Amino acid sequence: MNSKRVRVALDAMGGDYTPQETVGGAVIAVQDWGVEVILVGPEDAIKKEMDKHHIDDLPIRQVTSERGIREDEPPVAALRQNPRSSIVVATELVKAGEADAVVSIGSTGATMASAIMILGALEGIKRPLVGGAILGFAPETMVFDMGANVDCKPRQLLGFATMGSIAAQKILNIANPTVALLSTGAEKGKGNRLVKETYQLLEESNLNFIGNVEGVDIPLGRANVIICDGFVGNILIKFCEGLGGSIAQRLRNTLRGHLSTSDIEDIATDIISLTNMPDVEGGGLLYGVNGVVMIGHGRSRAPEIAKCIHQAEKAVRSGLIDALRAAWEGVGA
Amino acid sequence: MNSKRVRVALDAMGGDYTPQETVGGAVIAVQDWGVEVILVGPEDAIKKEMDKHHIDDLPIRQVTSERGIREDEPPVAALRQNPRSSIVVATELVKAGEADAVVSIGSTGATMASAIMILGALEGIKRPLVGGAILGFAPETMVFDMGANVDCKPRQLLGFATMGSIAAQKILNIANPTVALLSTGAEKGKGNRLVKETYQLLEESNLNFIGNVEGVDIPLGRANVIICDGFVGNILIKFCEGLGGSIAQRLRNTLRGHLSTSDIEDIATDIISLTNMPDVEGGGLLYGVNGVVMIGHGRSRAPEIAKCIHQAEKAVRSGLIDALRAAWEGVGA
Repeated sequence: MNSKRVRVALDAMGGDYTPQETVGGAVIAVQDWGVEVILVGPEDAIKKEMDKHHIDDLPIRQVTSERGIREDEPPVAALRQNPRSSIVVATELVKAGEADAVVSIGSTGATMASAIMILGALEGIKRPLVGGAILGFAPETMVFDMGANVDCKPRQLLGFATMGSIAAQKILNIANPTVALLSTGAEKGKGNRLVKETYQLLEESNLNFIGNVEGVDIPLGRANVIICDGFVGNILIKFCEGLGGSIAQRLRNTLRGHLSTSDIEDIATDIISLTNMPDVEGGGLLYGVNGVVMIGHGRSRAPEIAKCIHQAEKAVRSGLIDALRAAWEGVGA
Repeated sequence: MNSKRVRVALDAMGGDYTPQETVGGAVIAVQDWGVEVILVGPEDAIKKEMDKHHIDDLPIRQVTSERGIREDEPPVAALRQNPRSSIVVATELVKAGEADAVVSIGSTGATMASAIMILGALEGIKRPLVGGAILGFAPETMVFDMGANVDCKPRQLLGFATMGSIAAQKILNIANPTVALLSTGAEKGKGNRLVKETYQLLEESNLNFIGNVEGVDIPLGRANVIICDGFVGNILIKFCEGLGGSIAQRLRNTLRGHLSTSDIEDIATDIISLTNMPDVEGGGLLYGVNGVVMIGHGRSRAPEIAKCIHQAEKAVRSGLIDALRAAWEGVGA
């Protein structure tokens, strides 16, 4: 794997600026990181865009599909009506062993549904998790789940902790990651029913469980893996993004006249980056499905799409999926 | 009420720096806002501290109690063992009509338990709520609950919305406050089970319900009253405080050498204030009990304690408690 190029299937028809930005992102990715990219979309549209770049010698090729699924379509119904849509064909390339990963900046729901239907999920996983670092202040702290699992049972959170621990090992290269539960107090017994019951399960697990952490501990990086349900995780990450934006705007106003415009913009951008990790990293990986699936923001432009492809490549090279599967079988979850 | 001094009973033995700071806070409060403060604590300790100030002509007096309850004591047991503790005696002054409000920077649990046991709660309220503004960016947005109600039912959240709406009317002077549910998406149907079921109840209520808001909407002040369970609210407010601190520290490092030390400290302090509203306001009011009860941070010094007393005074003058009781009877909750 290390010497071979990683092959990434890109849903070239997903996202807000398609296919210009997806094709542009693919070109950056193959040039900067030596991956191979398979652009999935209608031949005419993709080829026309490819012709704008000098890519005859680059490992980029096109595979034909029909249209992309939009964010505003009900995902499962849209997939059913469009069985040759770009996300389906891209995901099938992974299933067939013709690609090592799929990257999409299209509909999150359709990407998740395709992943589950085509690649399959680990046993007991109904919806994949989304996890990763949420703050530049704590780059070695990943939060699980930030996604679709809004009503959770204790055993599900134990599963998040198991996957998060493997993710921190493989993605962050931390040998024995610390795992904590997000709660309203550090002491055992603090928190809601879900947290209290999960605490018990984590204590009995062989994970490196260090107890509860509070909201104030997240920026301090008090644990490598912080576990919460997807309702809390989603609200947190969006609040973080919003607060970072408001603070950046405040600084633009406060610093005006005191520093040069470009210095002020650097400072504002720094704060926005530190509070928008999914943007910095290009997107988030899905956990719990049998393959590397990376989802980026629909509003991504070529450079962000290239980052997304790079993240997918790193996940493939890390051996994450095999490690997750092995850990999952180990706990019999 | 408008011409009469508001009488605030202060638990002079609660907090980290007691009784020096509590007595000092009382002195500031009576001088700056014309309230009357009743210092509750052991005579010797309080009188000794009072003697350090020139307060012969000021409306400050001492009422005798035994010791304060510490934050690390189990509240209910501690109250049982100390039936003449300072928080109990202070709360009893309100019950007896000798004070209009009680202020405590001591044990939150003991303050809540005293309030419920002595003043009584509104019908159906097991634990009082804590609510208020969480961000200086959105001073007209209050969040309920930030406190102890970590496992909630839809009807409880409806109750939070009812109380929050009255609070926004009385504390923020907003005639018809907008009420929203904190969720993972703006559309009806997004969120966890609790939110979906509460959505229904809020739609049927006569509150000015505007639907769901997301985490990113909080700093933008998209609603006057944002409803969540106390688990989410507690995590959010602590995360906000932690993130504000990390960003302030980042700015101190980034701006060093570019601006004067005092300008940098002003900017850092501004960010910390904007993200620490309970500190700015001195603390938070308890909602759902039959009296004005204000809880501040244990680490508060005299100026913050004075602010806490001022907030309590404003709550008394606003007629909040009567309005809450009337609204509560109206919905038959």
